Amino acid sequence: MFHLTRFTFTFTLLVKIHSVFNIKEDQAHWRTLGEKELKEALTKRTIDGIAKNVILFVGDGLGPTTVTSSRIYGPGETGHLSWEKFSNIGVLKTYSANKLVPDSCSTATALFCGVKANHKTSGVDATVDVDDCQASLKHEAQLNSIIGWAQDAGKATGFVTTTRVTHATPSALYAHTPNRNWECESKIPTGSSQCKDIARQLIEDMPGKNIQVIMGGGRQCLQSDVKGSPADPIDTWSCYSKDGRDLIRDWIVDKSKRKATFQVLQNNEELQKADLNAEYTLGIFANGHLKMDFERDKGPKGMPSLLNMTETAIKLLSSHKNGYVLMVEGGMIDFAHHRGHARKALDETVAFSDAIARALEVTDPKETLIIVTSDHSHSMVFSGYPDRGTNVLSYTESAMDKEPFTSLLYGTGGPNNYQFTVENNTAKRIDPSKNDTTDFEYSQQAVVLTDEVTHSGTDVLVYANGPMAHLFTSVHEQSYVAYVISYAARIGPHRDGLGNGTTSLSVNMLSMIVLITIPIIKYYTS
Amino acid sequence: MFHLTRFTFTFTLLVKIHSVFNIKEDQAHWRTLGEKELKEALTKRTIDGIAKNVILFVGDGLGPTTVTSSRIYGPGETGHLSWEKFSNIGVLKTYSANKLVPDSCSTATALFCGVKANHKTSGVDATVDVDDCQASLKHEAQLNSIIGWAQDAGKATGFVTTTRVTHATPSALYAHTPNRNWECESKIPTGSSQCKDIARQLIEDMPGKNIQVIMGGGRQCLQSDVKGSPADPIDTWSCYSKDGRDLIRDWIVDKSKRKATFQVLQNNEELQKADLNAEYTLGIFANGHLKMDFERDKGPKGMPSLLNMTETAIKLLSSHKNGYVLMVEGGMIDFAHHRGHARKALDETVAFSDAIARALEVTDPKETLIIVTSDHSHSMVFSGYPDRGTNVLSYTESAMDKEPFTSLLYGTGGPNNYQFTVENNTAKRIDPSKNDTTDFEYSQQAVVLTDEVTHSGTDVLVYANGPMAHLFTSVHEQSYVAYVISYAARIGPHRDGLGNGTTSLSVNMLSMIVLITIPIIKYYTS
Repeated sequence: MFHLTRFTFTFTLLVKIHSVFNIKEDQAHWRTLGEKELKEALTKRTIDGIAKNVILFVGDGLGPTTVTSSRIYGPGETGHLSWEKFSNIGVLKTYSANKLVPDSCSTATALFCGVKANHKTSGVDATVDVDDCQASLKHEAQLNSIIGWAQDAGKATGFVTTTRVTHATPSALYAHTPNRNWECESKIPTGSSQCKDIARQLIEDMPGKNIQVIMGGGRQCLQSDVKGSPADPIDTWSCYSKDGRDLIRDWIVDKSKRKATFQVLQNNEELQKADLNAEYTLGIFANGHLKMDFERDKGPKGMPSLLNMTETAIKLLSSHKNGYVLMVEGGMIDFAHHRGHARKALDETVAFSDAIARALEVTDPKETLIIVTSDHSHSMVFSGYPDRGTNVLSYTESAMDKEPFTSLLYGTGGPNNYQFTVENNTAKRIDPSKNDTTDFEYSQQAVVLTDEVTHSGTDVLVYANGPMAHLFTSVHEQSYVAYVISYAARIGPHRDGLGNGTTSLSVNMLSMIVLITIPIIKYYTS
Repeated sequence: MFHLTRFTFTFTLLVKIHSVFNIKEDQAHWRTLGEKELKEALTKRTIDGIAKNVILFVGDGLGPTTVTSSRIYGPGETGHLSWEKFSNIGVLKTYSANKLVPDSCSTATALFCGVKANHKTSGVDATVDVDDCQASLKHEAQLNSIIGWAQDAGKATGFVTTTRVTHATPSALYAHTPNRNWECESKIPTGSSQCKDIARQLIEDMPGKNIQVIMGGGRQCLQSDVKGSPADPIDTWSCYSKDGRDLIRDWIVDKSKRKATFQVLQNNEELQKADLNAEYTLGIFANGHLKMDFERDKGPKGMPSLLNMTETAIKLLSSHKNGYVLMVEGGMIDFAHHRGHARKALDETVAFSDAIARALEVTDPKETLIIVTSDHSHSMVFSGYPDRGTNVLSYTESAMDKEPFTSLLYGTGGPNNYQFTVENNTAKRIDPSKNDTTDFEYSQQAVVLTDEVTHSGTDVLVYANGPMAHLFTSVHEQSYVAYVISYAARIGPHRDGLGNGTTSLSVNMLSMIVLITIPIIKYYTS
């Protein structure tokens, strides 16, 4: 599918020529395209072998509307984002254990551990409510993840993110916490001091301390009293360590004691010069989250792109003869949406697409299963009837209030998104065309004034390529992703393939008997 | 997949018991579910044979957010709509020839004819701009559809809709028009009188006059001066015939002349007593669109459900030994969204699901390809963080403006959706909890005041089951659906299977040469 045949080349060239000369596609265009798509579908072969490697890409907040809008923003509506030619597509239901519209760590728990968790909890099952430290300490409530499964099976493991390495999504890979905000000690309430913060779990506990490749931001949770700068600010609202810790040093001490080769990388230059033979790599490129792709310093002392980190991570892990499991998060898509800045979200989605394109170039689909999905959607809509050729960030025809409106709008949004004024004692929406709606900092209008744009409960898509990609063809629970990885790579619960189901069925039968018995007993004892 | 095995039965029962007792799912639940989904995926077999029959279900305006919300509204978040266990899923890009966010007839043209058309045009290619009667009359601009292809291949054909039979979506099956509003003579401007209205094209022209089963509303476009009643009102805004026509009579005359058996059905009672051996059936159950499922008169003189019409249509067509092609539209989903009434949209989606469930019961997946998709999305969002167990139509936590907000909101909306007031000279959103937000007539809040809720450009999903369902596994152009039907049923352009591509390639090569030559000539002549 990634071979540029002469046919595809001719076709691509034609599409480009058509677009440059702004010629509307004719009947022959659509027929040829239809035939091409039929041929692609008919020549597609499923890969039934075991996946030596698995790369799971998670676009945080990358719901269907963001995918469509980012396609138009990036390659254009006739083009494809890098994962859109994958061999299979499924749909994931994202509700969490207790919410119809979920947050990022309960959904990461579903994706990585195969069990749905409560809002704001990570790596624990639904017996743990938010903030319940005691419940989260119970061994039976703590979940193993694809990272733990992979390590148990002798595979190398890694994760890459544009967020803090202790943030919601990655935390579900290695931590067990009743509150996603407990990234360092300073956010843990005094009554819950028995609970270890997320950063310490990453560096001190299994499976975190055995992860070969860790890349992202979050220095402010790993080291105490770090200083921010305009190029590398401190994330406000988030954990900021003050207890004198230096978990980067502790990580080094641990690897030294184990006589392993290791490296700590902290900027572009160091990443570029990384020793690809090092056994352990800790890349901490920012105090807080990494800067977005459009604004990061691309120089030697600056922060890397998701593409740079992903490529190096794959190269580092590829030397392991038993294969690897790698999670890559495009975390700033969600962040941009929360702030109600659509262009940033689209731009970060294109950067996410670029990272996946590079991953495709440096892996072999016969041995590497690549899955691209999202944890949840966001409440952006793409509406109106803009003409083709219009910038997706632009505004369109006048509404009944005589003002134009941007094609992208939000359901909920912060104060900058809530743009209403009063005219003749009537509430009136502000004219968006008076601002540059295509600017990175422009806030699209929203109907509800919230502290930030809230997530959406719309199903997300899952795209897969490589061994066992065909296990995604339907509407699945989000937790299904973990079991596909388990089965495809023969790690975790399906390390030996599929059981005969007897155990699970027995558990269910037992549970049914108990459940039926309760009301009967109640009836007779009342 | 549709066999209720003991395992599935136990499982379903358990889910119900869990839900009745409001017990949160435990780890075993998700593991068992994961194993069940893996087994389903692993035992799935592709059906490679030719599709004797094809049923294409189109949920008008049924974008991903409507699917998720309707699942929660209907079977609940743990359940599935009837098509959500189909064997394959793809994504469709819905942009039209000239719009990033399309309307229903340009997209119906893509779905049924395989060629993208301009906004508001139907059954013609992109050389025809809206209102350009002359261009639409050119034979080479007029497109053949899956209905025409099927008839040419000796198959029976039919369509069922809850809209007027002359409305946007069905019109692309049989008509060629530069304006979707030209449903009857009274909407055609004097300068365009050479153009035949959509109703006359259905009754007088090919392939309309050869369609075996036609069911829907639209009497006001087929007959002149029809009288409305509260139970069967006249659609305002739409075409109302006044030229003395009686196209139902003309239809009868035509079938009589051809010595065919036929029947005209106009209410529930007549539909129920339909002669399943009649060669031609015209079911016109309303003056305008059919009433929505929740409000229709279910008695003998009332209007049928989409399920009733679909089941009878399949039974009527099943007797044809060469098979059939049937299009079924759930058209009121879009209508409800346009009016900004979310509950109606969700309710009509569940009715659409019920019709598909029945279709699955009365067809054999080995010989019938069933495709479920949509023409375009709508600008509803599903946001906030409502708890599980909350009605999806309810409101959720307080926003920064101290007022709660409904989980469902719209980007754009009519005057009833634009709910702002003035307090202390500041624009303020009205508290939605003062109304019954779960009512069918409740209008969810929107940020932009438009005359009606506008469509969304978010990609739609396509679900398929039966022969060649596996041709949908990726991101496709919407026009691809027509070619899948063509190939699967061996009708139309792929009646003889796939060509070797030489013709199309030659056309492209030629087009490329021409396109490259133009600037060269321009350069030398400037």
